[in-house]
Amino acid sequence: MSLRIKEYTVDYLLTAGECNPEEKMPVQLLVSRIIEVATFHANHLDVGFARLSLEGLAWVLSRVSLEMKRWPGVNETYSLTTWVEDVNRHFSQRNFEIKSGDEVLGYASSVWMGIDVKKRQSGDLSLLESMRDVISDKRCPIDRFPRINFSSDGQVLTGNDYRFRYCDCDFNRHVNTVRYVELLLNEWDLDFYDAHKVRRFDIAFMHEARYGEEVVVTRQKSSDDDNAYLCMISRGGEPLSKARIIFTNNI
Amino acid sequence: MSLRIKEYTVDYLLTAGECNPEEKMPVQLLVSRIIEVATFHANHLDVGFARLSLEGLAWVLSRVSLEMKRWPGVNETYSLTTWVEDVNRHFSQRNFEIKSGDEVLGYASSVWMGIDVKKRQSGDLSLLESMRDVISDKRCPIDRFPRINFSSDGQVLTGNDYRFRYCDCDFNRHVNTVRYVELLLNEWDLDFYDAHKVRRFDIAFMHEARYGEEVVVTRQKSSDDDNAYLCMISRGGEPLSKARIIFTNNI
Repeated sequence: MSLRIKEYTVDYLLTAGECNPEEKMPVQLLVSRIIEVATFHANHLDVGFARLSLEGLAWVLSRVSLEMKRWPGVNETYSLTTWVEDVNRHFSQRNFEIKSGDEVLGYASSVWMGIDVKKRQSGDLSLLESMRDVISDKRCPIDRFPRINFSSDGQVLTGNDYRFRYCDCDFNRHVNTVRYVELLLNEWDLDFYDAHKVRRFDIAFMHEARYGEEVVVTRQKSSDDDNAYLCMISRGGEPLSKARIIFTNNI
Repeated sequence: MSLRIKEYTVDYLLTAGECNPEEKMPVQLLVSRIIEVATFHANHLDVGFARLSLEGLAWVLSRVSLEMKRWPGVNETYSLTTWVEDVNRHFSQRNFEIKSGDEVLGYASSVWMGIDVKKRQSGDLSLLESMRDVISDKRCPIDRFPRINFSSDGQVLTGNDYRFRYCDCDFNRHVNTVRYVELLLNEWDLDFYDAHKVRRFDIAFMHEARYGEEVVVTRQKSSDDDNAYLCMISRGGEPLSKARIIFTNNI
């Protein structure tokens, strides 16, 4: 058996074309990189797209939490290191460390479901037993995914509505998870982002949206933190995704 | 002086999360890769972001033409090779060859303007004289950028309107060029793309759009080719971008 790397690292350069207007790495790009590096590591471990599709299975991203002390800036090199924290027959948990040189910029954690592609429901990933021996004890020192429940006595703001179009849809013929992240971030305007940056972002993907469907974004200020917002993307009253975003001053 | 590579190649893997619903590489991802590989090569030649910004200059993408015989499929490795075809004090022309193993999948060509970042107008890139000695005579065997003019006697269809939001904007504090590509592609629906693929895509970026601005997409069937469309993105009657898209049957 060939060497199986427990902690898998990919190096990147943040190009100008990728930056947000504040000349930093956008949240949605970090989520794309998390998905990409997880894909590469799963391929390396032979539990990636090719292997799972032989059994009619696929990985689907279920949750992401990320917390950044500092975001990479334009023309800066950075790396993502990923490792498996836990795995069972139905899901795996993967963590990520984001660094620039020796400086740790932040951490992320993610939960991936194995789904049966035809039935669109949780599949049996018993083939993933082989992943147990690559579980790493490297620490991911950020808080666990929070409870995200709107409070009944707080004001709920109804934001943008949006109808999903062709470029929002991916391989699975439903809306790409990164588009959900963008929809949420678009609730705030350019002036707000010039004054604030995202410190922590948690998102759970609950149901799939499809081409042509209309959704609406609602949000509520968190009762215990003035810089934190609870958000929901829903379709006809049904929640598709819940998120919590914590901002900090951009100074 | 260190070795300067004339023909610069980057290898990629097309992940499931990146694919379009037809399980192929999306047009907008190829445009992103073109920008990325051009950026890496310019950095390598020391005419990239870091060097130009010392002089208050930046590269801005002005035109792209791409023509694909076959698009990479899910989990396929592919490469982009770029080279400089021409350069003068105001712009450079770069070409690209897209391959999978030894198979040539297609070609692209691009024109980049050097702009004065503060004045937002064409800058003097005399420092680019050093690029002349990396001009390659490798061929890019696709037709030149076409004339894109709506015919006065053809029907003009008015399509989607769109207001640009935070995640559409990039480092330059205006709308990212890749968003223009997506806006155009979104004029057709999922059923159309299941039956057709893009064979050739030409786009010119004429004016910048900013956060919060509203644009509309119009299009007209080309008089000389039933599978070709001329498209325009305009803001209050002013054209921001013109494009031509040629489809072919997806069989």
